Amino acid sequence: MSYQIASLSRLVEQLERLPGIGHKSAQRLAFHLLNIPEKSAEDFLEAVRDAREKIHECAVCCNLADQELCPVCRADNRDTGVICVVEDPRDVMALERTREYSGTYHVLHGTISPMDGIGPEQLRIKELLTRVTENDVREIIMATNPTVEGEATAMYLSKLLKPFGIPVTRLAYGIPVGGDLEYADEITLRRSLEGRSRID
Amino acid sequence: MSYQIASLSRLVEQLERLPGIGHKSAQRLAFHLLNIPEKSAEDFLEAVRDAREKIHECAVCCNLADQELCPVCRADNRDTGVICVVEDPRDVMALERTREYSGTYHVLHGTISPMDGIGPEQLRIKELLTRVTENDVREIIMATNPTVEGEATAMYLSKLLKPFGIPVTRLAYGIPVGGDLEYADEITLRRSLEGRSRID
Repeated sequence: MSYQIASLSRLVEQLERLPGIGHKSAQRLAFHLLNIPEKSAEDFLEAVRDAREKIHECAVCCNLADQELCPVCRADNRDTGVICVVEDPRDVMALERTREYSGTYHVLHGTISPMDGIGPEQLRIKELLTRVTENDVREIIMATNPTVEGEATAMYLSKLLKPFGIPVTRLAYGIPVGGDLEYADEITLRRSLEGRSRID
Repeated sequence: MSYQIASLSRLVEQLERLPGIGHKSAQRLAFHLLNIPEKSAEDFLEAVRDAREKIHECAVCCNLADQELCPVCRADNRDTGVICVVEDPRDVMALERTREYSGTYHVLHGTISPMDGIGPEQLRIKELLTRVTENDVREIIMATNPTVEGEATAMYLSKLLKPFGIPVTRLAYGIPVGGDLEYADEITLRRSLEGRSRID
């Protein structure tokens, strides 16, 4: 005999599908969503609906955008001659937080991963080639993740871009700032040695 | 100069208000909610809407219910002569998981906590007294949390119930099953000694 409340179970079940949310957290979120005032609940639902309705991919760089172009492609102070290729819109946010980079981006929306059945045709590679063909691009920075898939994708793209004669660069590998040499893995440390630079 | 996408920021902000969700998790959830198929998104929104619409407090025990009575109060095999008083609907779920208890519940929806401005009148105490007056109750089990507020609330209620002459009991304190004596705190251990029982 079960004493479950159907609509509560359904809500908990839906919340459990969210990434990183287990059963206990889902219950906690469900009770929260039941207890907040009507106005807050409406704002919450509206934010989900509105974001899903308005957000799509930027016509140029495939980053998320709520207009035809994303905020970076829309800005007139960004250097369109430099394209930084990333896997995911979150990587754009991470790089923007450095306040260092003034070029543009290209979001692949994934990496080549035969294990997951993702080949080059599922990524926004065609769009990147179009940009390179139609615009005056001076440098392409590969900023895919330092994983096997990220590396493979960067290698694949750099070969694909070779005929265009545009310099392709890769983000530096090395020990993270504030990290501890003792705890760095061998591969990172080896790359860090290889990439050492002169102190002037 | 900020390159934010308004509707995305709004969604992340809304998700950050959920309990236990920080900025990074909120971003992750937002991307998930943007990427799922339309049907899944509709199911999600509908589950929230539906639960908020249907779920209210049980007319008898103040537990959550989607009908006039909660599943426990609706069942005809529960002993209405025993009432287990808990703080929260989640406590009902926890006790139900034991499959041991066959009485009914009463959900207070909080504890007396002057620091948070919660007095007895904000809890469902009136409803409990009505039940005790109108029904033939043989035992009331206090199952509020073993915290200062939970204890104070249990003491307050047992005094309030004294005139009715109904036995009021309290859940046993002691070392948790599978726990380690060495790591038990003094108060728990002391209570565990006080509550020792004979091995027959």
